[in-house]
Amino acid sequence: MSPTTGKIARFTVHDVRFPTNVTGDGTDAMNKECDYSAAMIVVETDTGVKGHGMTFTIGRGNDIVCYAIEQVAQRVVGMDAEAIFADMGKFYDFLVADPQHRWLGPEKGVIQLATAAVSNALWDMYAKTRGKPLWKLIVDFSPEEFVRSTCFRYITDAISPAEALELLRAKEGGKAEREADVRARGYPAYTTSVGWLGYDDEKVERLTKEALAQGFNHFKLKVGADVADDLRRGRLIRRIIDDPANMPPGRVVDPKTVEGKNAGPTGCVLMVDANQVWDVPQAVEYMKQLRPISPWFIEEPTAPDDAVGHAAIRKALKPHGIGVATGEHAHNRMTFKQLLQLDAIDVCQIDSCRVGGIQEILAILLMSAKFGVPVCPHAGGVGLCEYVIHLSLIDYICVSGSMERNVLEFVDHLHEHFLYPVSINKDGRYNVPMDPKGGYSIEMFEKSMSDYAFPNGNYWVATAKGEPFAGAPQAH
Amino acid sequence: MSPTTGKIARFTVHDVRFPTNVTGDGTDAMNKECDYSAAMIVVETDTGVKGHGMTFTIGRGNDIVCYAIEQVAQRVVGMDAEAIFADMGKFYDFLVADPQHRWLGPEKGVIQLATAAVSNALWDMYAKTRGKPLWKLIVDFSPEEFVRSTCFRYITDAISPAEALELLRAKEGGKAEREADVRARGYPAYTTSVGWLGYDDEKVERLTKEALAQGFNHFKLKVGADVADDLRRGRLIRRIIDDPANMPPGRVVDPKTVEGKNAGPTGCVLMVDANQVWDVPQAVEYMKQLRPISPWFIEEPTAPDDAVGHAAIRKALKPHGIGVATGEHAHNRMTFKQLLQLDAIDVCQIDSCRVGGIQEILAILLMSAKFGVPVCPHAGGVGLCEYVIHLSLIDYICVSGSMERNVLEFVDHLHEHFLYPVSINKDGRYNVPMDPKGGYSIEMFEKSMSDYAFPNGNYWVATAKGEPFAGAPQAH
Repeated sequence: MSPTTGKIARFTVHDVRFPTNVTGDGTDAMNKECDYSAAMIVVETDTGVKGHGMTFTIGRGNDIVCYAIEQVAQRVVGMDAEAIFADMGKFYDFLVADPQHRWLGPEKGVIQLATAAVSNALWDMYAKTRGKPLWKLIVDFSPEEFVRSTCFRYITDAISPAEALELLRAKEGGKAEREADVRARGYPAYTTSVGWLGYDDEKVERLTKEALAQGFNHFKLKVGADVADDLRRGRLIRRIIDDPANMPPGRVVDPKTVEGKNAGPTGCVLMVDANQVWDVPQAVEYMKQLRPISPWFIEEPTAPDDAVGHAAIRKALKPHGIGVATGEHAHNRMTFKQLLQLDAIDVCQIDSCRVGGIQEILAILLMSAKFGVPVCPHAGGVGLCEYVIHLSLIDYICVSGSMERNVLEFVDHLHEHFLYPVSINKDGRYNVPMDPKGGYSIEMFEKSMSDYAFPNGNYWVATAKGEPFAGAPQAH
Repeated sequence: MSPTTGKIARFTVHDVRFPTNVTGDGTDAMNKECDYSAAMIVVETDTGVKGHGMTFTIGRGNDIVCYAIEQVAQRVVGMDAEAIFADMGKFYDFLVADPQHRWLGPEKGVIQLATAAVSNALWDMYAKTRGKPLWKLIVDFSPEEFVRSTCFRYITDAISPAEALELLRAKEGGKAEREADVRARGYPAYTTSVGWLGYDDEKVERLTKEALAQGFNHFKLKVGADVADDLRRGRLIRRIIDDPANMPPGRVVDPKTVEGKNAGPTGCVLMVDANQVWDVPQAVEYMKQLRPISPWFIEEPTAPDDAVGHAAIRKALKPHGIGVATGEHAHNRMTFKQLLQLDAIDVCQIDSCRVGGIQEILAILLMSAKFGVPVCPHAGGVGLCEYVIHLSLIDYICVSGSMERNVLEFVDHLHEHFLYPVSINKDGRYNVPMDPKGGYSIEMFEKSMSDYAFPNGNYWVATAKGEPFAGAPQAH
């Protein structure tokens, strides 16, 4: 307990947008232009303790989310921070229980994105007051504290608090060993940086080779605009990643990490991502045609709300050896519950700030473990990599106890704006965040927040005038 | 074609809130305080043709929706109105296709509510330019025009455009007769005005008797806060509505309208509504205890996104003779698709402005007809009754061909603010809106919009000063 943490006294909200549209980063079959944006909140107590939280959008409308964050955060002002930390599950219930705001969701869309930013800011503050990175704060929880921090409302037909407790207790024994292991080796990652739709073949080839040299062995390609293009680009990547001559010296692949993933002769894995462009029957027909490039899974084949549709696609593609992954647009734990109950996914791709904060994340990690589905969080954008390494560490150390089959998305964008950025080790794995002041790793440099503040930050003002801006992002 | 309709030139957005919280109207187990509110848009062409649209909220956050409406509507400015009317399905695709706004949903929450307001305003304008109420505009469509106005994206695994066409063609022959029939007799309604949680027993008794005298024979009670209270209130209503002595003179009940609905000896039906307060196992246990009051269905037993959960509840309650209804919070056609595919509902309760406009409504009507589930739209609030009578007329005349099992919710609130308000005939049925200038019936008096504009309208300014306001709503 830290009696000096104080009461929540004030907050500021920041609409921060990075002009990623100019470089072609982040383009896929659905999202053809995006300026990666953060709807950021900084919460401060009357004793000056701060917490940072954000949610992610891709540009226009980031102000709508900021506007909603103001209203959600207003409800927290005056609350005692330590009283919040003492029961984070109850705090989540409070955040989503405003009857009038609830009507705008419930627990989905703009109001849920706002809830995520506020909830995550409080988790960041909590971790900082304890002098621990967020993952470590939670890993050190007792199973009882973990369960108390989890939102079980509406999911007890899939997992009860008692079952969760049992599951967590069964993993208690190995926690110290797993923590030591992942701190030494890092957490497995995959790269999406090679295959955005906006990139030409030469760029894809160059980036694939660079990623191999960095130690990656999972590669993701955006598909869905044109079968012939997808096959050509997929074969191009396959040719490079399946060729032993392209492997970096001294490379070792643990076969357990690629088991059941259609790995090629070098132990490299290809995934494809359609970003919701298809109807259910279209998804099945299109993906059968991509069988020659043997992807591990198709990500987001159809509407993200459609658990029944994903189940049908998974069943139809099973004979073709292709799995199904989704989750980055699944807006709450009830959607994940249904995806798991209907056997609709091979891989669960939670997003760190589309669902309403750590309290929902813990619920989804617990359900995924119970249903035996590996969790590979969505990342990229801005700030998402910083967030998700914490989630995967919690999953590995406390919940699933496994990181062999898992891989955590990594995209090499915009990390330079964060005080505690993620980094990748020589084996293409995430380093474990260790800074005791780092919290949830989401604190952004004040200069970045002000330069890219929309529409009045230095970058946007210069651009509106047609003037160059020093430090603007360059094409990779 | 009306070449003088012109281009969309401008729009105004209005945050209008009615202080229903002071009367206890609209209270249920989830929504304990609500000020019924309209996020209203008035769209105008450069030739002065107007269209009105709104979405409904229950107070705080109505400004967030208005803020989002501004951004969605901005994308329509400059478009030719007749080009929009020529392909309303394509217009819906356009409205939801902005890649950056899409990230905030997709097709759910605040951004979808905003889409609904804008889409409905264009439908209102379309109907007004043709000098027809909206239902008549659509009823006069050929099956081909109907299908072209429907959004099929992401639902073709449940119904294809070809199947829809076949279904509509099969109903073509009887359209004129059904139109004449409903114009003569009105559309069946039920009342929710009797059983809000905020009302005491005396008020419930008085309102139930009044409703019987008005000709109603379906009654809805809000439940979920306390079993004993619910049983007491349910028995109170049952005692009144099952007693032949309380029936108005000359009353005739068509037995087809109450078949399979647990009707009592007088042909009266009781429904109960929990407004999402339970988890799945809780819902089953609680509802078994309400068996003595024999409700037709339990409405919104759990989270509105949870099709799997609703299916489980329905299966468990079937042996107890209690059905399941939901839909007022189901945010898009994909959620309805799953509810239908999983046999999760006995009654489909679409909301007129939570889903993204008529284009989605038509999709849901078609799917419900194919799956054999009656559609009983959600109404009440402000403006919802005005909207939904149009939807039920379209359903009866063109799609399902049946109004025997259906009943349309009616709540006697706030109709006085509309230029073309709904009305109920002596048999407790909705009159058919016939004004050729009425469009989608959602145009509000300018005085109402300005008096109740939040926070600067006359009512809210007077209230903030503690002064009385002439014309403020009184408790019923």
